[in-house]
Order: sequence, then structure tokens, then C-alpha cells
Amino acid sequence: MPAAYTIGIDLGGTNLRGGLCDDEHVVRTHAAIDTEAERGFEHVLARMVTLVEALLQNAALTKADVRAIGIGAPGPLSHTEGIIFDAPNLPGWRNIPLRQRLAEAAGLPVVLENDANAAAYGEFVAGAGRAVRSLVLLTLGTGIGGGIVLDGQLWRGCDDSAGEMGHTIIVPEGRPCPCGQAGCLERYASANAVAERLVEAVRAGEPSSLREEIEAGAGLDARDVLRAAERGDTLAARVWDQTCYYLALGCINLERLLSPELIVFSGGLINAGEHLLTPVRQYINKLRWHIPTQPPRIALAELSGDAGIIGAAALARLS
Amino acid sequence: MPAAYTIGIDLGGTNLRGGLCDDEHVVRTHAAIDTEAERGFEHVLARMVTLVEALLQNAALTKADVRAIGIGAPGPLSHTEGIIFDAPNLPGWRNIPLRQRLAEAAGLPVVLENDANAAAYGEFVAGAGRAVRSLVLLTLGTGIGGGIVLDGQLWRGCDDSAGEMGHTIIVPEGRPCPCGQAGCLERYASANAVAERLVEAVRAGEPSSLREEIEAGAGLDARDVLRAAERGDTLAARVWDQTCYYLALGCINLERLLSPELIVFSGGLINAGEHLLTPVRQYINKLRWHIPTQPPRIALAELSGDAGIIGAAALARLS
Repeated sequence: MPAAYTIGIDLGGTNLRGGLCDDEHVVRTHAAIDTEAERGFEHVLARMVTLVEALLQNAALTKADVRAIGIGAPGPLSHTEGIIFDAPNLPGWRNIPLRQRLAEAAGLPVVLENDANAAAYGEFVAGAGRAVRSLVLLTLGTGIGGGIVLDGQLWRGCDDSAGEMGHTIIVPEGRPCPCGQAGCLERYASANAVAERLVEAVRAGEPSSLREEIEAGAGLDARDVLRAAERGDTLAARVWDQTCYYLALGCINLERLLSPELIVFSGGLINAGEHLLTPVRQYINKLRWHIPTQPPRIALAELSGDAGIIGAAALARLS
Repeated sequence: MPAAYTIGIDLGGTNLRGGLCDDEHVVRTHAAIDTEAERGFEHVLARMVTLVEALLQNAALTKADVRAIGIGAPGPLSHTEGIIFDAPNLPGWRNIPLRQRLAEAAGLPVVLENDANAAAYGEFVAGAGRAVRSLVLLTLGTGIGGGIVLDGQLWRGCDDSAGEMGHTIIVPEGRPCPCGQAGCLERYASANAVAERLVEAVRAGEPSSLREEIEAGAGLDARDVLRAAERGDTLAARVWDQTCYYLALGCINLERLLSPELIVFSGGLINAGEHLLTPVRQYINKLRWHIPTQPPRIALAELSGDAGIIGAAALARLS
């Protein structure tokens, strides 16, 4: 009989978070430590082994009880080859064979997955998408990541680079993106883009109640923009509204192309709750075609920070 | 042993075209008759039976040699239910249970598929995509249809409406589309849109060698625009170039979202050959991200008018 548990690890630039999951996708024990990414790959590798040991100790289990480890990691990476090609938040990580190195160091099989894919799979097996067979997850945070589950399986594309909804071009010749393209969705609708667009408008001379804070060099985030909008700040309200507009366009395009059963929003922006969902749904209804197909169903993620851990652990179960 | 042959039918508003295919996706006999759509559904149904009989007669076969009939039809339709909900080119067709009615009339099992899906599957089994496992096909004709094959299977979405790349929004608040949206890709890059945009620019006062023809009421098509561009007509060259630009944006978005092994162009516009492919590829290379993933591979369809027949026949084989 195969071992009953799998471990999911969420590898971030700041935190290394893990969970030991049972075969019903329940996290039995959690653990989290600093990544200490500035100390380089070999150090982070040792930290990952420490994390695995802490999870086992907390659960009073041994390696023999664990089938495999799944890692949700920033990319670009190759799931197939188990290699991280590059990771902006992990200095010096270039072409790192993480799957093989961690398997050797931890003495367990390892599966490497893109972090947004892991989160999408987590919401699919145990979260907002547990009743559907197809979904697209959008992580609305620093940027916009994405994961696609079709007929119960992750769709990774021919080079493990599918699901990059944040880098679909939504405005021809639009805002430049660090990826090298212009007009990417994440330049209009990520949590960071909300704050950036407000700051840009204020610097261009538009009136806003946030001007003093901005001129004093305070770092704004999407929450500040939403709060200002609620207080009656016209510019903040417009920026928030435009964010919802662009997200609606992105959802319509997902509907046209893939017609998934569900679109799941996750990431920092979903703290806005109905302030996000209601206008996005209104714009979708206003802007989508008149052909009588089902409108896309949109839901907020349910697993919060655990989606990536649960998804990575569930993917490790498939290995 | 199941019967060896299947029949594929391409149901168009003007022509009813069919082929009897063997298990290697070779069309053994062709037949084509007028649809006579103006005479209504019951008449077209009888015409489809006539077409099937003609195919059998030409091949000196009987119904017993045929496993099933596949139909590629304009939509929206439900593959699952076998119903055509609406078909702009087939007057009076509303909620027509074509699968059941043709099965009864022809005495054979029937599979109903969206015509662009059938063409995509045809190119997948026997055309430009026969060496790949995933592709997206774009039909660049009156509008832009699309079909998606992932890991060897058509992806139809939760309500059989996936693959509508022509109705992804590429320009926010852009050109109005009869579907009810604005800025759909097909309003910029279908064969019809090429001619329309040139005519609009001329009517708005821009100089062009095609002005006299347009003022005389001559119907222009994409070919006329390309020929004028080749003769040195600046406006025609710009319209053609913009068409390639928007197609490139569409391909980049497909790459980001699905990362298919291949994108196949089909439909009237591909008669332009390298005049289409070269600038589209140049724009893709110029506009796509700098992250080192494989650029999308683009090819022209190889089966021409037979793609839908071969695809529908191959899908009937799966039934």
C-alpha cells in the first residue's frame, strides 16, 4: 500500500511554507520558515529539508509515511524536467534542477510545479472548484498569474508556459510590461497595477485625497485605493472601476476561448470581496456577446494561502 | 468488427459537401450539392440523405459499411445534445435536433460538431497538425472561427462554446461586432474585415487606388486589398499590415494562455500565403515577451476545403 501522506511546499522569495496533507486534501500539519533566499540556492535547499523534517516531527510521522513532495515555485520552470530556469525573487537561481536536488536531499520523490498552477489545482481539488471539472484561476497580486484545469487535469501547454493570463495583451500598444510586451492584463488589473495607475494619475496632476501621502513617498496599495474610492475620491473610484473593467475583459476572453465552468480569483485583490466581484460581473454582463451561452461563473478562492500547498501536495499524489 | 468507413458532411449555407473516409482519414469519395437552405430545414434534411446516398453509390458501398456520420455545422450548437440552436446562414433553423433527425432519416448514428472544431480536428488527424498533440486552428474567412485540440482531444468547454478566438476582445471599446461585443479579433483580422476597413478609410477621405471601384459600388475582398498593396497603394498596405499585426496579437495571446504546439491558419485569407505568414511572424517576434519560451509555431492549413469533412468523419469514428 502506498504511503498515505504527501507534502506540499510553497516556495516564495520571503517565506517557505509547507503542509503535510492526507488523501482527502486536508492539511494535517503546517510549518513555515524564512526562505533566506539571499544566502543562495544550496542554503534554501537545506531550509527545504528542515521544513520537511519539521512537518514530519509535528505530525509524529516518518519519511516512510510520505509518498512524495510537491513544490509550487515561481517560474519560468519546466514541470517535465523539474528545472527552475529563472526566478526573479530567488537571486542566482538559474537552471536549477530543483526536483532532483531536493529528491536527493530529502530522500523522497519530488514534483515541481508552477506556483499558480499549484494554486489552481488546490482550488480544484479542495476549494472553490471542488464541484467542477474545469476552471481557470487568476492570482491577482504583485502580477497576475494563472492556472488552467481542464477536465480535471492541469493544462501546462507544450513548454509548461500555459496559463499566463496576466501576460495576454488586452490593450494594443498599452502600458509597457517588464516581460517585454506592452498592454499585458497584469499592467491594468493586478493589485500592484491598481496602486501604480493611481500614483501615475496623481503625478500627472489629477486631484486626489491621496496626493499628500503620495508626495510624502508613502507606499500605496490596492487597499488604500479602494478605501479612498469609498470615501468619495473620484480618481480612486475611477481607477478601481477601470481595474474591474479590464478584469471583465479578461474573463470574457477566457469565456470565449475556453468556456471553463468556473473562473476563480485569488491573491491580494480579493480582500475587496464584493467590491471586486460585483462590478466585474456587471461589466461582464454589459460587455459580453448577446449569443445565449452561459455567462462565466466567477468565484473567490476559498483556500487562501493554503491553495498552493494543497495543490502541490495533490499533484505529488499523482506522481 | 465495426464498419470501416465514416462519412463527414460540411453543412454550409450554400453548399452541402460530403466525403466518405476510411480509417486512415483518406476521403475515398466526395460529393457536393446545393444546400437550398431557403427551402427550410425539412428540405435540407432530405438533401443530406441524398448526399449520403450519393457518397455510398459512388463508392459502391451500402450503409452496412458505414459506422457513423459526422456533421460540421455552423453554430451556436450543442455537440452534447446534438442540437443547432441558431444558424445565421440557414434561415429558420432554431433549436433543431439535427443529430436525432438525420440519424432517423439516414439510418445511421450521427455526431454533430461545430464546423471550426471539425476543421481543427481534421487538420489534427490528417493535415498541418498530424505530427503534434495540441493545436489551435483559426478560420480566417467571413469571420474568425476557431477550434482547439489539446492532448489529442477537442476542447469544447462547458457549453460547447469554447474556441471562439474571433470573439476575444483585442481592442477595448473597439469596432462593434454583430455578436454584441466591441473590439472582437474578427473585426480586425477576418478576410471580410480587411476589405471593410479599407472601404471605411476610403469613405473617410483617405487616398487609395481603389477609390473608383469603391465609389462605383464594386464589392472588394481581401485579395483586392493585398493586390493593391503590392501595386504600391499605401492605404491598402497599411490595412494589410494592421491585419497581420492584430493576428500576431491574437497568436501571442493564444501562446500565453494555451501554449499549443501549433497554430494553424485556414480560410480565405491564407491564399495570401507568405504575404500573410511572414509579417505575422515578424510581429510576433517583435511583440512577444522576452522570457525564453518557444515562440508559437504557425502553419497554413493543408486540407483546404476537406478539413471539415475529414474532421467530422474522424469525430464520427470516436462515437
